[in-house]
Amino acid sequence: MSDLGCHGLRLDPATRESARRRLLSIKGHVEGVLRMCEDETIYCVDVLKQIKAVQGALDKVGGLVLQSHLRDHVVSAGQRGDTESIVAELMEVLKYR
Amino acid sequence: MSDLGCHGLRLDPATRESARRRLLSIKGHVEGVLRMCEDETIYCVDVLKQIKAVQGALDKVGGLVLQSHLRDHVVSAGQRGDTESIVAELMEVLKYR
Amino acid sequence: MSDLGCHGLRLDPATRESARRRLLSIKGHVEGVLRMCEDETIYCVDVLKQIKAVQGALDKVGGLVLQSHLRDHVVSAGQRGDTESIVAELMEVLKYR
Amino acid sequence: MSDLGCHGLRLDPATRESARRRLLSIKGHVEGVLRMCEDETIYCVDVLKQIKAVQGALDKVGGLVLQSHLRDHVVSAGQRGDTESIVAELMEVLKYR
Repeated sequence: MSDLGCHGLRLDPATRESARRRLLSIKGHVEGVLRMCEDETIYCVDVLKQIKAVQGALDKVGGLVLQSHLRDHVVSAGQRGDTESIVAELMEVLKYR
Repeated sequence: MSDLGCHGLRLDPATRESARRRLLSIKGHVEGVLRMCEDETIYCVDVLKQIKAVQGALDKVGGLVLQSHLRDHVVSAGQRGDTESIVAELMEVLKYR
Repeated sequence: MSDLGCHGLRLDPATRESARRRLLSIKGHVEGVLRMCEDETIYCVDVLKQIKAVQGALDKVGGLVLQSHLRDHVVSAGQRGDTESIVAELMEVLKYR
Repeated sequence: MSDLGCHGLRLDPATRESARRRLLSIKGHVEGVLRMCEDETIYCVDVLKQIKAVQGALDKVGGLVLQSHLRDHVVSAGQRGDTESIVAELMEVLKYR
């Protein structure tokens, strides 16, 4: 099967499936925080703790996808000849991480 | 109306409603990233960009709730006499932010 | 002894001394990274690890000063009547932390 | 000139010199914060602002070194055959960034 993206690079299937499952769980977590915010007795710090937990879960998904990108695409940029664009987009996405 | 939480402190209604609306939008954003991850041609960096955008949106909700907590509860801890616990839980939630 | 700053709020002496000692050690650490950068065989990742370590040490000093500020000044803003400015400057300093 | 490190990879001279100059300026900045901490009237938030500024400057040095590492060493890992170790050490250094 050939790559179909304009650059021909794709997230590998195992990481994609793992990211999908984690994002499904993150969606459930966000729904939980939403329900908290419907409770008029909710305490600020409890909301902050949940937001922090969701951010931690997103960090983990991001870490998985980043590792997969480094391993599958960045280390081979020298061979493909797209070093400049691969490095530029990676630096952009790592900013303020 | 009296405070009902064990400590009697609550997220103020306007911030709670604003957080709820933003979290609803964040939930939609997460669903969008989920759909991306069902596409087998998706590119790693596109997923990373979306995760970063969701994190930015969560940072904003967290900022709103934090500001509200500082203004409504932290600045009055001296009067209430719960300085130690208010500061400890705030430091915990700000860690690794 | 009276407060001399324009707002009359000061970093407490014990935290100030602890911050000073930690910053002295951080200065030494930065000098170490400087020396690394004079070595023409130095490896990028070794520099990155040291920069990360210095950042971690700065996070700790920042955490000490923040905790002291919350405990000594923020929790009493309600009594002093400067809630708005105390919260605004704190939100500013916590941004992108 | 041949590479001398155990892995044969080095920070490129221009980036090393740029990092050195920036670190020299950061050292001066840390010395400035040290002097602040010798002033008994210093205000917490002024220290926090300076620490944040130093962190920002360190982020910039780190960004330069990271970009140089990606461009000079990571994109060629596939050709050298050290993908696994290059990716593992990079993920480690990017953690909590």
